[in-house]
Amino acid sequence: MQDYALTVDRFLDHGAKWHGGARVITAGHGEHAAIGYAALRDRANRLSGALLSLGLEAGERIATLAWNTQHHVEVWYAAMGAGLVCHTLNPRLTVAQLAAMIDEAGDRVLAVGAGLGMLAEALVSACPCLERVILLDGERPLATGGRIKAVELDDLLSREGAPVVWGRFDERSLAGLCYTSGTTGAPKGVAYTHRSNYLHTIRLLQADAMALTAADTILVAVPMFHANAWGLPFAAPAVGASLVLPGRVTDGPSLMGLLNRHEVTVAVGVPTVWIGLLDHLDAVGGETPSLERVIIGGSSCPETLLSRMESRLGVAVQTSWGMTELSPLGTISPRSHGPGGARGAGRPPIGVDLLLTDSGGSPLPDQRNAVGHLKVRGQSAVDHYFGTTESALGADGWFDTGDLAILDDEGNLTLAGRSKDLIKSGGEWINPVEIEEIVGALPAVGLVAVIGRPDPKWGERPLMVIEPAQGGDIDDGALRASLKGRVADWWIPDRIVRVEAMPLAATGKINKTQLRATYGGA
Amino acid sequence: MQDYALTVDRFLDHGAKWHGGARVITAGHGEHAAIGYAALRDRANRLSGALLSLGLEAGERIATLAWNTQHHVEVWYAAMGAGLVCHTLNPRLTVAQLAAMIDEAGDRVLAVGAGLGMLAEALVSACPCLERVILLDGERPLATGGRIKAVELDDLLSREGAPVVWGRFDERSLAGLCYTSGTTGAPKGVAYTHRSNYLHTIRLLQADAMALTAADTILVAVPMFHANAWGLPFAAPAVGASLVLPGRVTDGPSLMGLLNRHEVTVAVGVPTVWIGLLDHLDAVGGETPSLERVIIGGSSCPETLLSRMESRLGVAVQTSWGMTELSPLGTISPRSHGPGGARGAGRPPIGVDLLLTDSGGSPLPDQRNAVGHLKVRGQSAVDHYFGTTESALGADGWFDTGDLAILDDEGNLTLAGRSKDLIKSGGEWINPVEIEEIVGALPAVGLVAVIGRPDPKWGERPLMVIEPAQGGDIDDGALRASLKGRVADWWIPDRIVRVEAMPLAATGKINKTQLRATYGGA
Repeated sequence: MQDYALTVDRFLDHGAKWHGGARVITAGHGEHAAIGYAALRDRANRLSGALLSLGLEAGERIATLAWNTQHHVEVWYAAMGAGLVCHTLNPRLTVAQLAAMIDEAGDRVLAVGAGLGMLAEALVSACPCLERVILLDGERPLATGGRIKAVELDDLLSREGAPVVWGRFDERSLAGLCYTSGTTGAPKGVAYTHRSNYLHTIRLLQADAMALTAADTILVAVPMFHANAWGLPFAAPAVGASLVLPGRVTDGPSLMGLLNRHEVTVAVGVPTVWIGLLDHLDAVGGETPSLERVIIGGSSCPETLLSRMESRLGVAVQTSWGMTELSPLGTISPRSHGPGGARGAGRPPIGVDLLLTDSGGSPLPDQRNAVGHLKVRGQSAVDHYFGTTESALGADGWFDTGDLAILDDEGNLTLAGRSKDLIKSGGEWINPVEIEEIVGALPAVGLVAVIGRPDPKWGERPLMVIEPAQGGDIDDGALRASLKGRVADWWIPDRIVRVEAMPLAATGKINKTQLRATYGGA
Repeated sequence: MQDYALTVDRFLDHGAKWHGGARVITAGHGEHAAIGYAALRDRANRLSGALLSLGLEAGERIATLAWNTQHHVEVWYAAMGAGLVCHTLNPRLTVAQLAAMIDEAGDRVLAVGAGLGMLAEALVSACPCLERVILLDGERPLATGGRIKAVELDDLLSREGAPVVWGRFDERSLAGLCYTSGTTGAPKGVAYTHRSNYLHTIRLLQADAMALTAADTILVAVPMFHANAWGLPFAAPAVGASLVLPGRVTDGPSLMGLLNRHEVTVAVGVPTVWIGLLDHLDAVGGETPSLERVIIGGSSCPETLLSRMESRLGVAVQTSWGMTELSPLGTISPRSHGPGGARGAGRPPIGVDLLLTDSGGSPLPDQRNAVGHLKVRGQSAVDHYFGTTESALGADGWFDTGDLAILDDEGNLTLAGRSKDLIKSGGEWINPVEIEEIVGALPAVGLVAVIGRPDPKWGERPLMVIEPAQGGDIDDGALRASLKGRVADWWIPDRIVRVEAMPLAATGKINKTQLRATYGGA
């Protein structure tokens, strides 16, 4: 059969040739910019020529610090099509974190989107390797004390833009670089190949996955620096769907405006952004008539929020689970599924395989209805982290997600905490998530976290930290009583601590590292 | 990213592990056999061991002569999983044609399904390379004069079946061999690789392609020897859909029975089988309530049949175009599309690219709304035919389909005849299909074909052959008048011949080769 390299430039070629009616729309003040795939491909392709004219060489990284905009998509395809590696930076990280990533990647060029100039100036100061800045989305020139030449994207295009032939390299060449969020460990770089991104994209398009079609208009409320915006800037042109890019703003009023103005059919993002939308709709009595589906991921979603979304928006909600290391899709529930919580985070599509093991790495005998350590193998799963030669896989060849999970009879995944949060007491494991779910459901409890504390007799014993609900009041006896009979007696925490405000990480998750530092001493 | 070879054994592994509820059902007398993917995988895997025990070696071909049954699927995965090449034979061809294919492929083992024993006996006589026969579906032992040992599949499994490790070879290894039908030239072998079949399969699963899901039950009315039954025995376990295999019989009453007994949601086959179903439903007043979609291909479908299917069956009909050389899917119309004829045969999914050229091979400038010669490039398109080292591609790197086609503004494909049927008159081209469509719509005309006849002045001139409709009567003047003003005057055939019965090929298409031999002389 024909030799046909799986490179991501083909997605934009396809959209340009076969889907002339689709649009990429970027939200802005007043006017929203709209461009077809053919024109966008032309700009991105000439931008490839401009990037090469800056002296960038195949395989070299180029950093982007930008929100979801047309210009960001253009830089992305310009880099990847020319064999460069698009390194997306998360503007919500600290200068020190970002500088370390830029340094490790050896980025010489930084593309900076609107509103991020000040952060970029700090990065230029902190990163001697940076030589050039490209300004996107009309961002103003940077103050870098003359150290770096900044050029506006359209100026660069008109001065140096020249068509180049895209692709023609090995499909296992690197296409993108994305660092993990660092909420569960130090950020690590995941380097995607053209092949892994290509295969991930056609996985998304499957009818039992994201089921995107040429008739869809997709609102991408997940940032491009979060695992390639879950692959949507690849998937949309590959099937001829329109894209709506919200820029930075994803508050409720903005989302409602975008959904209705552009007749969005599919909206994609983490659970929290949809709370803002729902609250706004309730406040103003608004509707989103064109919207058919919402696809959520990034963190598990409370059943009450799922129900609220389905009833208030009148849409199907698809749940999913993924990781930066998986490109990111691991599992997804289909468009039509059973009611409510039965769906979990769905099943793995072909090309992803899951294994549950015990803490020693031995596969659970039945793989169903028992909590295990979740391991992954697959065509878009990490092999080793960027900048290391060390394998990221276990001796068994599987990638350990660090998650605990359970599979139901139909193979639907439900996450059950992080393995490093497990508490080993008397040689047996206690899973804090099971305790937290029971106690967290009590009306008087706002937030709850259970951590391990060294114990001379048992090795570790559980300690429970409670942030009471506003106006809530519950004594230790009642807290323990709520657990009685629902978990083993020896799982019930010996010590209970009350705090006024639970420490949270940047992502909104409870910061157990800090809790362990404060309360985890012997 | 992880190394993950794209081999087709993964589809059955996936179905076995993740979709325990799905079934492969084979129609039979009375009882219909049903098996889950886990049990089917176990049988196929142990059959791999049995095949290897017969002395077959990696890369070697094994022939199958069978209808759509569970046993046939088992042999197929057993062969491919073990690195053998499954060579599907079309029982509707002649002994001489099949013997030539077996000889070219060097098949040593032949698997024979129910009702095909006599043909198999003839092949054993004609093919010295055949050493073994495996009997499927309870077929009786063959009379081969003792030359060949025949063994029943379940006997072979119980005697020699042993688990083997599937895969672990290069994804560009051959997986299947299928000869073209020979209706438009001598049959040629197309050798599919694991990679090409894998990529083709996930193309089928896309929401804008066949959109198969784990909730579907698929009736496969296209034979496994026709380009891998359009890939469905791969796609069904890859997504966890159930398969209904009709064996040999696809008449109207049988189809209605299968659709309703097994609550089929998607039915796939050539247009003619659905005529039989519709006629039967009309005769008995039957309904097919579970059926949601029919996917057709193999030949273009008259608009009247499309409308009849949609209204009588209450289903969405998806049209498609493909070729054995494309694995086979080239284009497909989506589940939701515009009304009626506007859909054509749909658009190419990502991974298939189309080009229209003039007769000299130069791309048509606009690629839209003009008839051109249809060329293909893609990840599941032929590179060279089996047994040759010669490229099957043109100097431009594209595969010439031999078809004429037109693309509308949205990129939807409509076929417009075969390029070798074009008639060159006075240095200009006449397309017989355009004449045939106009004349064929006349009530008095049953079948019509226009061929070229050598002409001393013009090079060629068109000759029209008419099979009048039953009770139909129309004179030459009226036939010519129907064309006046609708085609150029010089396109109107000089000679008109009437025949009682139009010569047809085995596929039901008009045999123009025979017409040219009879009427095409100077």
